[in-house]
Amino acid sequence: MQKHGNFRGRIEEELIKLQLNDYPPELYEPIRYFLGIGGKRIRPVFTLTACEMFGTDPWLAMNPALGLEIFHNFTLLHDDIMDNASLRRSSQTVHLKWNRDIAILSGDAMFVKAFQLISSVDPGHMKPIIDLFTKTAIEVCEGQQLDMNFEHCNHISTDQYIDMISKKTSVLIGCCLETGAIIANASVSDREHIYRFGLNLGIAFQLRDDYLDAYGIPEKFGKKTGGDILSDKKTFLWLKAYEQASASDRKNLDRLAGNVSEEQEQSKKISDTLDIFNRLKIPDQLKEAEHQYFSLAMQHLDIIDQPETKKTVIRKLADSLFTREA
Amino acid sequence: MQKHGNFRGRIEEELIKLQLNDYPPELYEPIRYFLGIGGKRIRPVFTLTACEMFGTDPWLAMNPALGLEIFHNFTLLHDDIMDNASLRRSSQTVHLKWNRDIAILSGDAMFVKAFQLISSVDPGHMKPIIDLFTKTAIEVCEGQQLDMNFEHCNHISTDQYIDMISKKTSVLIGCCLETGAIIANASVSDREHIYRFGLNLGIAFQLRDDYLDAYGIPEKFGKKTGGDILSDKKTFLWLKAYEQASASDRKNLDRLAGNVSEEQEQSKKISDTLDIFNRLKIPDQLKEAEHQYFSLAMQHLDIIDQPETKKTVIRKLADSLFTREA
Repeated sequence: MQKHGNFRGRIEEELIKLQLNDYPPELYEPIRYFLGIGGKRIRPVFTLTACEMFGTDPWLAMNPALGLEIFHNFTLLHDDIMDNASLRRSSQTVHLKWNRDIAILSGDAMFVKAFQLISSVDPGHMKPIIDLFTKTAIEVCEGQQLDMNFEHCNHISTDQYIDMISKKTSVLIGCCLETGAIIANASVSDREHIYRFGLNLGIAFQLRDDYLDAYGIPEKFGKKTGGDILSDKKTFLWLKAYEQASASDRKNLDRLAGNVSEEQEQSKKISDTLDIFNRLKIPDQLKEAEHQYFSLAMQHLDIIDQPETKKTVIRKLADSLFTREA
Repeated sequence: MQKHGNFRGRIEEELIKLQLNDYPPELYEPIRYFLGIGGKRIRPVFTLTACEMFGTDPWLAMNPALGLEIFHNFTLLHDDIMDNASLRRSSQTVHLKWNRDIAILSGDAMFVKAFQLISSVDPGHMKPIIDLFTKTAIEVCEGQQLDMNFEHCNHISTDQYIDMISKKTSVLIGCCLETGAIIANASVSDREHIYRFGLNLGIAFQLRDDYLDAYGIPEKFGKKTGGDILSDKKTFLWLKAYEQASASDRKNLDRLAGNVSEEQEQSKKISDTLDIFNRLKIPDQLKEAEHQYFSLAMQHLDIIDQPETKKTVIRKLADSLFTREA
């Protein structure tokens, strides 16, 4: 059985070896650059791990695994344009390093390459894999649109928020796992459970991300905390607080969610917002929700018709995602 | 045998009936809008016509035909952002009617929908159709990048220009025809010939477009002539003239290819440029090149192993593309 570190190393190698034309360089250099600035490669690792868990040589799932990673990177590349982001994984974003048009077009070319790899499987698996992928890719677009819509609106329920993050990030985790299961000829029921495992794990992971952005230990989290609060992002914490806040706290939240430029005011904005979160016990509620989604994920994994020893790698992989701050 | 007018009508109906989600509307309304502002639908008509020519019920090719039309529209939508275009088929472009981010993302969603439809064929045809489509889609991205590169460079040979227009527009015509042939189980040789027919026809068509933009009768061409000259587009006419011009005419061409804002100067820019084209007999050279590509297309059609009566519709369709100005 492969350790996921081995999977990750092999995925990196395959991404470097990826067959791409060279001409015109303005199209292909940004793709090589973007695929080369790192990332945890958790999605393709999940594909290979699921394939192996269901008893099939994981390397048979390498093409769709790479395609899914490239699709993920394509969405990041286009999201960076929409978010006017200047950095991605501590490197300059493509639309700044080159320009907007090159970022749009090299993103489009990545998407084609992703589709090419995802459909590079044996003919018997093509239809279910493509059906799953296209359904997922549409949802990812919907999730990104909802995320953009929510920026301009305070009155989002946490249910709407969970729906948005499910589409924007979690469905792709489910899709990556189920793709590995399809290659391994898993039963329809097991395919459904591994998908649900990934979906719920993805939601729990996003909730943890919201928590760490506000409460993480910067040295362990890897970046300064409070970024979401400063950029007025409507996270689970903020929306839950807004739902439960008294009229005066709502006013405070509305007031705080404005533009702040001075550094001193920034830290006050963060601490005032955290005071409201804490008073309403929002961190506990987030942990409770995270726990529920994580448990639900594990229930789906438990049901899968494989011996427990086969599930060890995927279980450890899931756990490793949740040990980032401590 | 269907007339292509029937095909076009049916394609319009199918595009209106297209299964798309409704939520979020910011994602789907631009797609409905863009697919609704018209277009000749020549690409899907070619797919259905080729399928019928090879003796198979053309409606079996409807899904990939629609997918290819949607892919074409996706490229137009993203091109409009890159070209800062304000109008598309006399309607406002998506990035102006909504905004840039919505145009990027609804384009991406169209691309997914295109993949979904193109791969919605019976399992035996999936692999060749997807292989052909992904190869083509990559070339279309390359063609668009080359087109953007050429804007900033006068020293493009006409060979490089033909390579660019082949990729940007003609390969998709070839792909549309070959897709119909694949559905109809045409032989590998016939598939190759119908592809080459489309490729060369597409090049001839683009050359005719260059000619009409400069020399067309506005009432029949449907828009004012001289647009390419005013926007300093490096068309076949311009590049051929630049290749053959004397040192002083090159200077004139370089001088003319600058920014002109006054209306009076605009018409002088057009007439001065046309004077150089005419003196060098560029229109005749363009017609000669167009004729060569058109003849080559017809040679490929001639070789195809089908009775002449079967080829009539596609021949008429090809001819109809070249009777726009007179």
